[in-house]
Amino acid sequence: MGLIASDLRGKTIGLASSGGLDSCTSTRWLTNRQVNVVSLIADLGQPDEPDLEAVGQRMLACGAVEAIIVDAQSAIAEAGLQVIQAQAKYEGGYWNTTGIARHVTVAALLPELRKRGIKIFSHGATGRGNDQVRFQLATNMLMPEMQVYAPWRDSAFLTAFGGRKEMIAFCKKYKLPVKATLKKPYSTDANMLGLTHEAGELEFLTTPADFVAAEMGVWPQAAPEKAVIVEIQFHEGKPIYFNGEVYGPVDMFKLCNQIAGRHGIGIGLHTVENRFVGIKSRGVYEAPGMELLGRCYEYLLQAILDRRAKEFFDYISLQLAKQIYQGYWFDKASQMLRAALSEVTKLVTGTISVKLYKGNIFYVMSGNMPHSIYSATTSSMEKIGDFNHEDSEGFLRVLGVNARALAAAGQIGEEV
Amino acid sequence: MGLIASDLRGKTIGLASSGGLDSCTSTRWLTNRQVNVVSLIADLGQPDEPDLEAVGQRMLACGAVEAIIVDAQSAIAEAGLQVIQAQAKYEGGYWNTTGIARHVTVAALLPELRKRGIKIFSHGATGRGNDQVRFQLATNMLMPEMQVYAPWRDSAFLTAFGGRKEMIAFCKKYKLPVKATLKKPYSTDANMLGLTHEAGELEFLTTPADFVAAEMGVWPQAAPEKAVIVEIQFHEGKPIYFNGEVYGPVDMFKLCNQIAGRHGIGIGLHTVENRFVGIKSRGVYEAPGMELLGRCYEYLLQAILDRRAKEFFDYISLQLAKQIYQGYWFDKASQMLRAALSEVTKLVTGTISVKLYKGNIFYVMSGNMPHSIYSATTSSMEKIGDFNHEDSEGFLRVLGVNARALAAAGQIGEEV
Amino acid sequence: MGLIASDLRGKTIGLASSGGLDSCTSTRWLTNRQVNVVSLIADLGQPDEPDLEAVGQRMLACGAVEAIIVDAQSAIAEAGLQVIQAQAKYEGGYWNTTGIARHVTVAALLPELRKRGIKIFSHGATGRGNDQVRFQLATNMLMPEMQVYAPWRDSAFLTAFGGRKEMIAFCKKYKLPVKATLKKPYSTDANMLGLTHEAGELEFLTTPADFVAAEMGVWPQAAPEKAVIVEIQFHEGKPIYFNGEVYGPVDMFKLCNQIAGRHGIGIGLHTVENRFVGIKSRGVYEAPGMELLGRCYEYLLQAILDRRAKEFFDYISLQLAKQIYQGYWFDKASQMLRAALSEVTKLVTGTISVKLYKGNIFYVMSGNMPHSIYSATTSSMEKIGDFNHEDSEGFLRVLGVNARALAAAGQIGEEV
Amino acid sequence: MGLIASDLRGKTIGLASSGGLDSCTSTRWLTNRQVNVVSLIADLGQPDEPDLEAVGQRMLACGAVEAIIVDAQSAIAEAGLQVIQAQAKYEGGYWNTTGIARHVTVAALLPELRKRGIKIFSHGATGRGNDQVRFQLATNMLMPEMQVYAPWRDSAFLTAFGGRKEMIAFCKKYKLPVKATLKKPYSTDANMLGLTHEAGELEFLTTPADFVAAEMGVWPQAAPEKAVIVEIQFHEGKPIYFNGEVYGPVDMFKLCNQIAGRHGIGIGLHTVENRFVGIKSRGVYEAPGMELLGRCYEYLLQAILDRRAKEFFDYISLQLAKQIYQGYWFDKASQMLRAALSEVTKLVTGTISVKLYKGNIFYVMSGNMPHSIYSATTSSMEKIGDFNHEDSEGFLRVLGVNARALAAAGQIGEEV
Repeated sequence: MGLIASDLRGKTIGLASSGGLDSCTSTRWLTNRQVNVVSLIADLGQPDEPDLEAVGQRMLACGAVEAIIVDAQSAIAEAGLQVIQAQAKYEGGYWNTTGIARHVTVAALLPELRKRGIKIFSHGATGRGNDQVRFQLATNMLMPEMQVYAPWRDSAFLTAFGGRKEMIAFCKKYKLPVKATLKKPYSTDANMLGLTHEAGELEFLTTPADFVAAEMGVWPQAAPEKAVIVEIQFHEGKPIYFNGEVYGPVDMFKLCNQIAGRHGIGIGLHTVENRFVGIKSRGVYEAPGMELLGRCYEYLLQAILDRRAKEFFDYISLQLAKQIYQGYWFDKASQMLRAALSEVTKLVTGTISVKLYKGNIFYVMSGNMPHSIYSATTSSMEKIGDFNHEDSEGFLRVLGVNARALAAAGQIGEEV
Repeated sequence: MGLIASDLRGKTIGLASSGGLDSCTSTRWLTNRQVNVVSLIADLGQPDEPDLEAVGQRMLACGAVEAIIVDAQSAIAEAGLQVIQAQAKYEGGYWNTTGIARHVTVAALLPELRKRGIKIFSHGATGRGNDQVRFQLATNMLMPEMQVYAPWRDSAFLTAFGGRKEMIAFCKKYKLPVKATLKKPYSTDANMLGLTHEAGELEFLTTPADFVAAEMGVWPQAAPEKAVIVEIQFHEGKPIYFNGEVYGPVDMFKLCNQIAGRHGIGIGLHTVENRFVGIKSRGVYEAPGMELLGRCYEYLLQAILDRRAKEFFDYISLQLAKQIYQGYWFDKASQMLRAALSEVTKLVTGTISVKLYKGNIFYVMSGNMPHSIYSATTSSMEKIGDFNHEDSEGFLRVLGVNARALAAAGQIGEEV
Repeated sequence: MGLIASDLRGKTIGLASSGGLDSCTSTRWLTNRQVNVVSLIADLGQPDEPDLEAVGQRMLACGAVEAIIVDAQSAIAEAGLQVIQAQAKYEGGYWNTTGIARHVTVAALLPELRKRGIKIFSHGATGRGNDQVRFQLATNMLMPEMQVYAPWRDSAFLTAFGGRKEMIAFCKKYKLPVKATLKKPYSTDANMLGLTHEAGELEFLTTPADFVAAEMGVWPQAAPEKAVIVEIQFHEGKPIYFNGEVYGPVDMFKLCNQIAGRHGIGIGLHTVENRFVGIKSRGVYEAPGMELLGRCYEYLLQAILDRRAKEFFDYISLQLAKQIYQGYWFDKASQMLRAALSEVTKLVTGTISVKLYKGNIFYVMSGNMPHSIYSATTSSMEKIGDFNHEDSEGFLRVLGVNARALAAAGQIGEEV
Repeated sequence: MGLIASDLRGKTIGLASSGGLDSCTSTRWLTNRQVNVVSLIADLGQPDEPDLEAVGQRMLACGAVEAIIVDAQSAIAEAGLQVIQAQAKYEGGYWNTTGIARHVTVAALLPELRKRGIKIFSHGATGRGNDQVRFQLATNMLMPEMQVYAPWRDSAFLTAFGGRKEMIAFCKKYKLPVKATLKKPYSTDANMLGLTHEAGELEFLTTPADFVAAEMGVWPQAAPEKAVIVEIQFHEGKPIYFNGEVYGPVDMFKLCNQIAGRHGIGIGLHTVENRFVGIKSRGVYEAPGMELLGRCYEYLLQAILDRRAKEFFDYISLQLAKQIYQGYWFDKASQMLRAALSEVTKLVTGTISVKLYKGNIFYVMSGNMPHSIYSATTSSMEKIGDFNHEDSEGFLRVLGVNARALAAAGQIGEEV
């Protein structure tokens, strides 16, 4: 079976820490059991926690022997672009912002453990969610010899802490610097790509989407009445220019978050999705920059992919979304999917303008697409261009042979 | 090869007629060639043409020997529900409103031809589009002995009419009662489920989406500032109650079109999609009722389908959307897809409320779902319910065996 | 966590029993712990154990309080036909004979437990295999209130019995009537549909396929030099006549096993397949009747399914094979897949003759297929029939528009 | 519409020529119409026509102005390996030997046309088959400005030649050196990878498979009674050693054809398959080398791919087989599929021995696979290795939550 706290006595573990109630509680609880805790804080550009140095100080105050901040801003931005390039939305809408972040976090933190000779990686994900799966599988794949310890799957920890109430009491008792003692009615996970709000009141089907307070922008109702038009230029799948100015991936995401967030874009997508562990999850998501860049990307794609490539691309989107969601970003299947995708990504060069208005993104215009197969001339219903209307007669008569054969064989149902 | 006008001299054909410029032109052009034209007018509840009797009169004035109005309102509403039940949006957004209508039209008109002993079916679809394919394949399947004549694939007709200009001149010359002589900058196809605008100025990538004037409602900018909440109750996949009052399918669609249209819902979805004939098409779509009912349906589905069923359902959505788009609604593959779907449809019972606001649909609440597998108790991150956090330890260790084996076999790339 | 032996003291459990070493050992081991064991023996027409009454006697001798033989011969035959109708071979070759049998067994035994008020179901599948998954998931779905106890996942049992050696010693000590004390170099699971041989020596990649002694027939080398031709007639997906004589499903399988087995058909298919638990498995399979009936069915299908239906059918085959293999025969996804399949199954009527020769099945002739869309006339390369060669010119020119557009857009790689 | 003979008067075309009745007839028929015919003879290592110089002489005798032999042996061998690496069998069995050859032929011949400034490519494929599609689409993609002329879609040619009888009479009249005047009861297409026999008597469902005379080897009945064991070593997806001796791809195929053909391997796979044009086709195939190498490759793959990679690989096999069959080997979708595949191919290193016996291939042993994830230790049913049987308890309990939720939600049918 898995590791439990008593196995760790006298050992050093690396604990992925966000600085929240969970991190503080588990750090002290482990320290109380003679475990040396090294706090690992991934800098994912999380918008709800801009001061990671302060987080480090809090973790030390909770008993950590060391607090390390690992810069993963470029890594998460690059990963976000790959999600956009794959249009890897899970179960029809969720941009997988937390899913991809777990992989980025593991890949960023493990080398720090190796450097220090630490053999046990720990995280604060619960035993009912997807994040535990992502943390563990990514670790197993990238560093198979590393052991994983999860307090929320340890019965001693579970016995001590049934929920937030007991944790808050524990932190009070030990005077730990937990930020908010008042119970927020749901929990939030954050990084540069987006926020996911879930648990608490959000677990009830009777809680409306806008129960959640927007953090990366506003709900459409609070967005300005005046629309804005933005122009984004992509080069081989990467957004390079925004309104004519060049941006690197990190700044591009931050800028898009700001502008799209202000116009109510990318919030209110909520689903009752299927977790990998077989139970359903309910959340409200914010991802303004992902939504803006993702939709622009999709518009360009539509002019580039032909019917066969599009069908395969749709398959890749579904599969890669599943792979990320379930913690398999690093396995062989994902490598295959990404290799296929790269054949498309390199074609996505072009400029697109869209209008942002109270949660809506409207296409304005696009151009400069060297790999577009759209041709106004060929597509025209008027009698111009390369396409001969009469050829369609032969085309249809060929298709008709099969259609009639189905009818003759009694394969066309009476019920239709 | 296909039929041409000279083959039809002295014969009677049934011509699907909308009453527009095309219908008038081709009717008179054929009549001039001693072809007896029976005008077949499908009543699909088209919002842009409420007076079909007047259309019939126009067709007679153009030379038709008979004008028949065939009621297909119930049929199109039922078909629309099936599209919703399949979530059969083509290439990521288009509700297939024109695609499904062609099948409904053929199924409605063919019996009228058979009754009259007419052996030739004709339609006004061009030789570059999808509609010709749908008309022809549906006819081949439902009545394989029926021949199809398409003026737009007949070189004599094509020589006479290079575009709208020549048709308008022709209609003037023969004093045909064409409604509008002024050139609309794009063309529109309409039925109860939605409008599709394409061709003309819309063929250029530099034409913005809102170049099109909304006909079934308004663009979000013109929608009221005040949001509205509506409640829809589904029974075994069918919307039955709207705000507590019972409606049949036809009235349900008309009501939803009206209310959702008013709030800017379901417009501005535009794509550069792949036509079956291999060229791309660009259009702006309006489908307010489909979008409202479709999204509500999707919300209910999310609480019902488990991971495996959802994955198969997603496959069905993609495939059935393609089948409808390409004219194969009646073939064996579609029958298989619909049979699979029926196992899901019968589970979709429940009530859902959503808020409509300037193009946005926000989830408010849902309930009364006997087949929901969502459970706030089981999903909770707190320590309640049936799910034992410790079991996850075993779950993950089992999954980890494979993850580690991949690593040991050198299958986890260095590049990640 | 799961049940362990000490939880069962004084209770009555139903134990699925085959009469082999495992069944005897676990029955007595549980009896020794004051557990009342009711032996449940499913009659699946297993060819290696024709005398199930004797098995019952053995179980009683091992300490069972009751031994019940449940007739599942018709059920397994019907299930086998469904596997054939779906062509549901797992990972390219395995006819899923054990996989489907587990579902049939659970469905047959659970009502016996319910009748007796027994609340705990037990089986002898190990903690590394697929069978434990099938037993447990099928039970969870069909009777969710039933608990499952598996000795091979109970640490007390595992501590006592590291392998066959300890079990044989245990049986000797208690004088249990185990059939064979000599260690067979692999283990075999058997039912009317087929045998699967795995474990032991077969776990090594250096063990050749024909290390296994054929039990349902012979290896091709031992088959007669003289070929035999057989004729099978299917009606709506079911084999009805064999060489002109009518047979029910059970007798049809037994006859086909006999004749095909004699000619070396359906053996030697071996794979290193992926178990659900993530580890690989290696086995040698015998399924002569399944292979004969399955191949004949496939030949008929080929004349019936058009390209689109075939593509969907191939998807169903892969998915349903996976569902069966992983223990999900009863879930919603499987219901959807079977519903889709039923649209095909009802078309499969026809007569087919094949020649059996030393492991080979050769097509001889087929006919009487009312739903065949194959037409020698249409398919002919000669200038006859409905198909106009010139129409292909238009067909190809239409396809060529897209092909050329790809080239013009630089989407045809230089590397090819 | 397409080109017809009268368009070609005085022009030079390149005609893909096999040297058979078709090539001779069309060359002379075109020459008679003042068309300059350059005969292009692709050397694909066709086993039924070893003397291509003689073919060239025959074409000149028929009136060709030049006869060019283009070496494509390496190209076809490399392409054959890619088919094996993709396991791209069409509709469950056909190794796509003719399908892939058309692409190779076009890619080999077009540069010869370009060199000579020839603007029109011609081939002898009929208007009902798949080959015309492959020739035309490959040409459109690789050299979109090239025009294509097909005599079998030209009504003047079709009027002159209704079938073989008229062609033979024509050849006699003009004293053309056609090889066989006696009508073979079916036609054969050949290259190094395999032979396809179709048309003529094979069009009838009552013609048995072994009506065809084996050309690349023997039918199993005629194979030796003594089995042979061969050992093949693959390196990164390519067969390198055969029985310990190194071979290049061309020689590897020739050797495997010889040895596998002698033992009756790879013949008798026959199907009624779906042509792209919507009609069905019936053929008998020989591909002894492909079958031997392909099966060995599959055995190695089974030890390498995990469940997720295998599922995606199966998708690629189906799709790429369809792409090849339908003439889309060079399009974007195929590029994506091949890119995905390359992530697998590079893992396939290992040695495998199989036994060949009268049409059967039996696994003997395999090893030296650095990327294998199969582990006899982990897979063992005995209590050894990394896998803890008790972990499965947690694994199953997690899976069981969903299974029970389906039952509670009434989603498990009564009918099962």
